Amino acid sequence: MPFELTILGSSSALPTSERYPTAQVLNILGRFFLIDCGEGTQIQLRRLKIGFSKIKHIFISHLHGDHYYGLIGLISTLNLLGLKTEVHIYSPSELKDLIQPQLNFIKGEMNVNLIFHPLNFKKKQKIYSDKRVEVFSFPLNHSISTCGFLFKEIKKQANIKKEAIQQFTIPIAQIKKIKAGADFITENGETILNKTLTTPPPHPRSYAFCTDTAYHEPIVEVIKNVDLLYHEATFPEEMRDFAAKTMHSTAIDAAKIAKLANAKKLIIGHFSARYNNSSLFENEARTFFENCEAVQEGKTYKIISKT
Amino acid sequence: MPFELTILGSSSALPTSERYPTAQVLNILGRFFLIDCGEGTQIQLRRLKIGFSKIKHIFISHLHGDHYYGLIGLISTLNLLGLKTEVHIYSPSELKDLIQPQLNFIKGEMNVNLIFHPLNFKKKQKIYSDKRVEVFSFPLNHSISTCGFLFKEIKKQANIKKEAIQQFTIPIAQIKKIKAGADFITENGETILNKTLTTPPPHPRSYAFCTDTAYHEPIVEVIKNVDLLYHEATFPEEMRDFAAKTMHSTAIDAAKIAKLANAKKLIIGHFSARYNNSSLFENEARTFFENCEAVQEGKTYKIISKT
Repeated sequence: MPFELTILGSSSALPTSERYPTAQVLNILGRFFLIDCGEGTQIQLRRLKIGFSKIKHIFISHLHGDHYYGLIGLISTLNLLGLKTEVHIYSPSELKDLIQPQLNFIKGEMNVNLIFHPLNFKKKQKIYSDKRVEVFSFPLNHSISTCGFLFKEIKKQANIKKEAIQQFTIPIAQIKKIKAGADFITENGETILNKTLTTPPPHPRSYAFCTDTAYHEPIVEVIKNVDLLYHEATFPEEMRDFAAKTMHSTAIDAAKIAKLANAKKLIIGHFSARYNNSSLFENEARTFFENCEAVQEGKTYKIISKT
Repeated sequence: MPFELTILGSSSALPTSERYPTAQVLNILGRFFLIDCGEGTQIQLRRLKIGFSKIKHIFISHLHGDHYYGLIGLISTLNLLGLKTEVHIYSPSELKDLIQPQLNFIKGEMNVNLIFHPLNFKKKQKIYSDKRVEVFSFPLNHSISTCGFLFKEIKKQANIKKEAIQQFTIPIAQIKKIKAGADFITENGETILNKTLTTPPPHPRSYAFCTDTAYHEPIVEVIKNVDLLYHEATFPEEMRDFAAKTMHSTAIDAAKIAKLANAKKLIIGHFSARYNNSSLFENEARTFFENCEAVQEGKTYKIISKT
C-alpha cells in the first residue's frame, strides 16, 4: 500500500534551468495529494505520467507566485479534459479572488467544481480526513501567511490472533473490544492481557511539508516523529543573515528542526537560484542530521509500511 | 545583424511531455520581442540563456490560457530581479484585468512599469515602430478575438556608390535625394539614372506569426512575400471537421496560406496533444508547400540578410 512522495519542482522564487518552482505529489493509499502548484506543474505531471484525473486535493502553502502560478493552467487543463469532478483547494482565502477573473474568462461550461477551503494561520487544524488518512495544516513563519502540512495515516486497530480466538474461545462480541485494546477475561475469571491476544497494527506513516519558513521551533511539536520531513533550505550558512531578512531557512536550520522533531528522514529543497549545486546544502545539513538528502526532481521517496 | 526566431513552446491547449505551450522570442537587430507567453516561458528563457532583461515588448495573440498563463510568472521574476524598466504588452484589452489581482498581490515596490497596448481586432494596425523595425497586428479567425503579428525591417535607403560621387562630381546637398531614389542631372544637363548611382539596400526581412486561427485568406494580403511564416497547424487532414469546429487550421491549411502569400519558408506548430510525431503534419503541409518545417523547441530560425 503506497505512501510515496514525488518531487515535481524544488527551486525557490527565481526559476533555474534545472529546477521547476515548488510542487509535489503525495500518494497515500491511492489518494493523490498535490502540494503547492508552481508554474510548470502540469508539464511535470505529464512528464512523470501522473494522471491529471487523480488530482482531487490541492494544498497551497502560501501566495508567493512560485507556489501557485501553475494552478490556473492545471485547472484549465482539467476543464479541457472534460473531467466533471470536484477539486478541493486548501489555501489562503485570497487565492480564489486572485484567480477568479481568469476562471470567469474560461468560456463554456466549467466542468470542474472547485471547492475552496481557507487555511487557518493561527493554529494547527485538521483540514482533511477519511477512514485511512488525515491532513493537518499548521502555521509557519514567513513574510506572508504560510502553512505547513502534515499528512498521516490513521493508526489501524490491532490484529487479533486467530489462534488466540480458538485457544481462549473468545466470543465474536468481544473481538471488537480486544482489537480496540481491551484485555479478555475467560470463563474461569483469568485475565488474558491484550498483548497476548493481538499483533500490533502497522506503524502509521507520516509526511510533513514545511516551506516557506524561517527557523520556527513551534512546528517541532506538530511534526514530532514524522517519517519524512521536507523542510525548505533556501540558503547555505554563508547567507544566514539574508535568510533571516527574507524569512527563509538555511540548510542547518532545516537539520536542527529535523533533529528536534526526531524525524526519520529529512529532504531539503527550495534552493536559491544563486547556487547550482545542491551538495553544499546537503553537506551542511548532514553536520546536524545525517539522514538528509537534497531532493531531486522526478524522484519518488517511498515510506515502507512496517510494524 | 540578427533577425532570428527562437521557439520556446509549440504545443496546443493541452501540455505534452515534449512541448511547452506557445511562446517565441524574435531578435531583430538586438531588439527582443516575446511573442505569446504560455506557462513555462520563463523556464525556457532560462534554459536557452536568453536574458530576462532583454524582454521589453511582449505580444499576446489572444487570451486562451496556453498563450498567456506564463506572463504573471515572467513579470514576477522581472520584478524580483529588481529591473526598473518599462515592459510594453500588446494584447487584448481584457488581459490587464485578468492579471491585475495577482499584480496587486505582489508586495513591495513594483519595479517593472507595465504599459498595456490594446490590440485592434477589426483591421491591420501598426503597433510598434522605431528607426529600423515596425510591427503590425492583424485579425485572425478564431473562437475568441485573436491577432497575428507581422514584424518587418524598415527598408533602408539605397547606398550611393563612392565612385559615382567622384565621377559625376555630385554635391553633398544632392546625396540625400539620390539615396531616396532621385536621378542626378549633371552640369551638362545629362540625366544619370538612379540605378547607375546606387546599389540597392539590403532586402528588408520579415516574419509573420499566425496562431490561433482557422484557414483565413484575408491574411494573405497582409503577410505577402514574408520571409518566414509561422502558421498554426493544430490538426492533420483526418481531423479537418474537428479543426473547423474548433476554429483551428490543418497542416494543409497552413501550407495553402504560405503558398498564396508567397512566403519564403513556412514553419508550423501548435500540434494537438493527440499526436506525438510532428512528421505527419510536416509531410501533409509539404504536399502544398515544399519549404516547410515542423518547429522544434529550442531551435533558432535565422533569416540571413541579402540584397
